[in-house]
Amino acid sequence: MTASSPDTPTTGRFVGREHRFPVRVYFEDTDFSGVVYHANYLRFMERARSDMLRVAGIDQRDAFANSEGVYAVADLSIRYRRPARFDDALVVISTVEHLRAAACVIQQRVMLGDELIADAKVTAAFITPDGRPRRQPPAWMDAFQRLLPESPDMIEESK
Amino acid sequence: MTASSPDTPTTGRFVGREHRFPVRVYFEDTDFSGVVYHANYLRFMERARSDMLRVAGIDQRDAFANSEGVYAVADLSIRYRRPARFDDALVVISTVEHLRAAACVIQQRVMLGDELIADAKVTAAFITPDGRPRRQPPAWMDAFQRLLPESPDMIEESK
Amino acid sequence: MTASSPDTPTTGRFVGREHRFPVRVYFEDTDFSGVVYHANYLRFMERARSDMLRVAGIDQRDAFANSEGVYAVADLSIRYRRPARFDDALVVISTVEHLRAAACVIQQRVMLGDELIADAKVTAAFITPDGRPRRQPPAWMDAFQRLLPESPDMIEESK
Amino acid sequence: MTASSPDTPTTGRFVGREHRFPVRVYFEDTDFSGVVYHANYLRFMERARSDMLRVAGIDQRDAFANSEGVYAVADLSIRYRRPARFDDALVVISTVEHLRAAACVIQQRVMLGDELIADAKVTAAFITPDGRPRRQPPAWMDAFQRLLPESPDMIEESK
Repeated sequence: MTASSPDTPTTGRFVGREHRFPVRVYFEDTDFSGVVYHANYLRFMERARSDMLRVAGIDQRDAFANSEGVYAVADLSIRYRRPARFDDALVVISTVEHLRAAACVIQQRVMLGDELIADAKVTAAFITPDGRPRRQPPAWMDAFQRLLPESPDMIEESK
Repeated sequence: MTASSPDTPTTGRFVGREHRFPVRVYFEDTDFSGVVYHANYLRFMERARSDMLRVAGIDQRDAFANSEGVYAVADLSIRYRRPARFDDALVVISTVEHLRAAACVIQQRVMLGDELIADAKVTAAFITPDGRPRRQPPAWMDAFQRLLPESPDMIEESK
Repeated sequence: MTASSPDTPTTGRFVGREHRFPVRVYFEDTDFSGVVYHANYLRFMERARSDMLRVAGIDQRDAFANSEGVYAVADLSIRYRRPARFDDALVVISTVEHLRAAACVIQQRVMLGDELIADAKVTAAFITPDGRPRRQPPAWMDAFQRLLPESPDMIEESK
Repeated sequence: MTASSPDTPTTGRFVGREHRFPVRVYFEDTDFSGVVYHANYLRFMERARSDMLRVAGIDQRDAFANSEGVYAVADLSIRYRRPARFDDALVVISTVEHLRAAACVIQQRVMLGDELIADAKVTAAFITPDGRPRRQPPAWMDAFQRLLPESPDMIEESK
């Protein structure tokens, strides 16, 4: 699935624990004020998270198809530092900050070259098809280990 | 459901066979060129169709929840006549042009006052949860009768 | 502009200092997991803010057309409490919490009946066409007075 | 700008006269019925057209910044053949069918492997900042030559 023919969409790549994901700004992403519409950064960041998980070996489609569950954003804060514009080539840099049994906390920065465009902290919760929090599949917990900051005791027993 | 407290979203209304649905243009709808992004008219028109069906007594949510089926756009053509801009108060005027057992054809015009902004023809097909065409529920066929042009023999036996 | 023909989009209404704005959930707002996609609540909330300002007498279109400036979201935090679904009739309740010379802070709650779906805090900054912070027009500062919590000394001299 | 670091977004590539552009289906692209929302194919196709132009040497951002003009979709027809789903890796294949002084007609197919998902015909008109049709820059007309079907007399004198 991650085999790379020129027709395969990018999945981004890890540089150390940082997942780097390129995003082009298209017409659809901007508004009449000339810059990227604020809600659209959430779309960019969600694409980056989905592909970070994919590269880490986590198959969200399968988990949903098998009625195991799906990630849902539980909370999110974002600070908009500078505007991005049509045609800009952005990079979303994501790192897993924290892991809980039923959730993970991800830091994300949207960059234009060396300039910080926006930075955010996102908590994604794993939930059952009917919306209840559920422990993530063990294989996912394992996949996340590689993505966590050094100290292995960062992995909390979660509520 | 169409009871009208001030907190209830509009569903538009019929004037004769024409369903009229108001839409405000917000930041999200525009792009950096200053006008409404072309794909967003499809969102406006889909809102209008959903509410036209609602007012006509067709409950799409129930049909999906009961695994009966769901409408999907099968084809669509649209002509963009003039741009609309931030803050414009548009009206989407929809009429059912044609009814088939498993589909309906709807004409839609997006107006800014007396100016035609865009006009489109949309075929919506009723499909099963796994994507096969299915006859619409009999109650829906009945509901559509009122919305069709005069001659009752317009209702075709479908392909 | 707020004259109400049946073809005029709603602008919501104030109940005391709270602006109440109805939003219907359409196909476009949901994702395959069955609920409203998290970024789309930001669109709902921005519609509500735009119309809160409109009702309060603030004309964003004019200010932009005259190159005075435009609001841009500077930061935002949101907590997703419960999912909303296709066809739900939501209400976005917005209150101005704080006013600064070049920004305002707005609390927003998305409700489904008595249920809290999401709540957020949004800072909108007034910026020049080239992106620098600018003092809001005096008429806007006046318009905001009515929307602020009782104590008139809440209005800070801003950075 | 098209130099290819791993952090640069793809621009797709030409295979003969066909521009091939990969698109991943993310959460944002789907709706509760489980498949890609119909209007979102227009976003995919617009991304592909923007990058086709970029690869062909046409700089839309510059033309807009210099107040020369911008492309706007004038009309569009699309036929939805099969649904695409979350996580699908699609390819948008675009070919220039026709060139006029102030417009171009582009055929686009959205593919999932060998399966046709949707096909469309799009007329994009070059317009001035205030919305009037304008002749495309000569350099753009030249750039398009390489993209047209064999017979050079396909290039019409336009209305």
